[in-house]
Amino acid sequence: MGKTRLEAFSDGVMAIIITIMVLELKVPHGEDLASLLPLAPVFLSYVLSFIYVGIYWNNHHHMLHAARHVNGGVLWANLHLLFWLSLLPFVTGWLGENHFGPLPCAVYGFVLLMCAVAWYLLQLCIMSVDGNESMLKRALGSDWKGKFSPFLYIAGIASSFWMTWLALSFYVLSALIWLVPDRRIERVVNSAET
Amino acid sequence: MGKTRLEAFSDGVMAIIITIMVLELKVPHGEDLASLLPLAPVFLSYVLSFIYVGIYWNNHHHMLHAARHVNGGVLWANLHLLFWLSLLPFVTGWLGENHFGPLPCAVYGFVLLMCAVAWYLLQLCIMSVDGNESMLKRALGSDWKGKFSPFLYIAGIASSFWMTWLALSFYVLSALIWLVPDRRIERVVNSAET
Amino acid sequence: MGKTRLEAFSDGVMAIIITIMVLELKVPHGEDLASLLPLAPVFLSYVLSFIYVGIYWNNHHHMLHAARHVNGGVLWANLHLLFWLSLLPFVTGWLGENHFGPLPCAVYGFVLLMCAVAWYLLQLCIMSVDGNESMLKRALGSDWKGKFSPFLYIAGIASSFWMTWLALSFYVLSALIWLVPDRRIERVVNSAET
Amino acid sequence: MGKTRLEAFSDGVMAIIITIMVLELKVPHGEDLASLLPLAPVFLSYVLSFIYVGIYWNNHHHMLHAARHVNGGVLWANLHLLFWLSLLPFVTGWLGENHFGPLPCAVYGFVLLMCAVAWYLLQLCIMSVDGNESMLKRALGSDWKGKFSPFLYIAGIASSFWMTWLALSFYVLSALIWLVPDRRIERVVNSAET
Repeated sequence: MGKTRLEAFSDGVMAIIITIMVLELKVPHGEDLASLLPLAPVFLSYVLSFIYVGIYWNNHHHMLHAARHVNGGVLWANLHLLFWLSLLPFVTGWLGENHFGPLPCAVYGFVLLMCAVAWYLLQLCIMSVDGNESMLKRALGSDWKGKFSPFLYIAGIASSFWMTWLALSFYVLSALIWLVPDRRIERVVNSAET
Repeated sequence: MGKTRLEAFSDGVMAIIITIMVLELKVPHGEDLASLLPLAPVFLSYVLSFIYVGIYWNNHHHMLHAARHVNGGVLWANLHLLFWLSLLPFVTGWLGENHFGPLPCAVYGFVLLMCAVAWYLLQLCIMSVDGNESMLKRALGSDWKGKFSPFLYIAGIASSFWMTWLALSFYVLSALIWLVPDRRIERVVNSAET
Repeated sequence: MGKTRLEAFSDGVMAIIITIMVLELKVPHGEDLASLLPLAPVFLSYVLSFIYVGIYWNNHHHMLHAARHVNGGVLWANLHLLFWLSLLPFVTGWLGENHFGPLPCAVYGFVLLMCAVAWYLLQLCIMSVDGNESMLKRALGSDWKGKFSPFLYIAGIASSFWMTWLALSFYVLSALIWLVPDRRIERVVNSAET
Repeated sequence: MGKTRLEAFSDGVMAIIITIMVLELKVPHGEDLASLLPLAPVFLSYVLSFIYVGIYWNNHHHMLHAARHVNGGVLWANLHLLFWLSLLPFVTGWLGENHFGPLPCAVYGFVLLMCAVAWYLLQLCIMSVDGNESMLKRALGSDWKGKFSPFLYIAGIASSFWMTWLALSFYVLSALIWLVPDRRIERVVNSAET
């Protein structure tokens, strides 16, 4: 079974998710700054979610590059990841519309947590298909980012009801950790190809 | 004629269908649990439809992998399938918004039934193009799932006006039957390739 | 320059056009037949437009299969076609919401006419790039469909203000003419490949 | 690392951006000309933005054709460009709904400016990856369009609060400059291939 359609379908779904989020930025009726300013929280949550989908797309790109085979289990693990990512536009809109209220903030963190769990399961599936020769397994190494970020989301969920700005800081911190370029997979794939 | 664009277009349409369904989850104005709870039926019907589109995408992937040629008839049979799948966001939203009322429940089952019919026609088209050498024909065997699931949809439609939870159980049951991995096509394709 | 991205982008845009048209089918609030019936004209105009986008996608598939090269002119002629196709969801929704009123009916025909004009220009561009060796030119022959259908759209626009059902019949007739399989291009491409 | 998925993802996002902009053309309730005419500014701003996304897609096609390698930095520079492009539907709708008011006009120009900046950064990233052997660097030459158009956007932003029609003229002028076919990249790529 080929990886091509899995990549194409995932690209399509992530491209749509990243783009329909902007539909939550409802065009205001007024034409002055006063009608634009209430959109600031929606805009900021859009930026954060855009970065998250970008990170997932970027890592998905790398992960499937390192995968040798896919099977039915990988297809479903991938759909499971896309399901949680597809809830991002909803929670992003809810977070922004309510100016980062406690419950929207916690639910946003919960969806991020479930995306991380789905990502972890997808990694397990791909590594089990490739077995001992898995490039991905060698590339990941200790995978401290994958193991650390769920704790940030849990910390964010917990602190949502106490200080929402702290919760948001945890989500931003996790995004920053992932944004820092991670050359592990590139290095292993390159050395395997040469 | 190549399969590539047929696959790309179908991937695109199914990716959009699976993603715009989430737009029916309208962002609530309140920020408490009370404003989130009314969305539960919409969310549950979203999950069910997500799984159905996932099943169709997954099986589409396998079916076209086993197809050797496509012609104009296959293109139109495929568009016919996409047409009925494209109605899923509408009936999903209607089902959820009306808390699983009898008529939305029956119409939902009708669209599932028509998807199954369109799927069957697409299979016939692909097998007739490939003729006696059809890998798909050998792979399908008795195709009991394809023959059995329409009866589940019909049973669901019939019971919608009597007990809607029973109708929904039929739809969930059919999804579960298809979710169980089906190695027929993978096996035949693999043996043909070796 | 490759055809691959032109095909991929066109597939993407047409896949989105065909799918967002269904968003005009607004989920009704009631759950009985009385709340579903007012959607019948929107549904019928959706079916007609779905078939039209399907025809364009199908023919686009064939036309680019017969094209040898693309250049900047072809890219823009293609974008011009996608522009008019992108207006179909709008005119489809307007046609359906107003139960096939005269002006929506005429505007619908106008957009179909402009799509046909854009299609004709795209054909010219592709044939001029390929020059005398153009497979497409040989495949098209007299191209009576391409020359005849604009008259049907003009007849439809003219009769919109007089008898809207007649205008709609012209649009349906044109769709039927195009639906009849057209083996010209397939035949020429096959003979060129063997 | 391959360019294929970067192209596929960008095609997907740009296809969606260009298509969801048409959703800002809300279907009017009336069926006469009087209900259609208020949409004229929305339609005109849709045409302008469609052309801009078309230009970016077209140039993106050429730029990546001339790129030899992509790395993580290029992926993020590309996402950064897609982010600003994704704001086009919002500012287009705002511009049209307010009949080209001063602030919407300036914000529209600001998003165009940021797209141009993001484009410039993406170019830098691709050229730095390919180093001295960069086809893109040779193809660009003095790149007077890329250097000149930001000044047009800045002039547009500045004149928005004074004469909005002048600001719009600057945006239209910049689009026209880019529309004029630019054979630099095609020429260099062709000479490299022969």
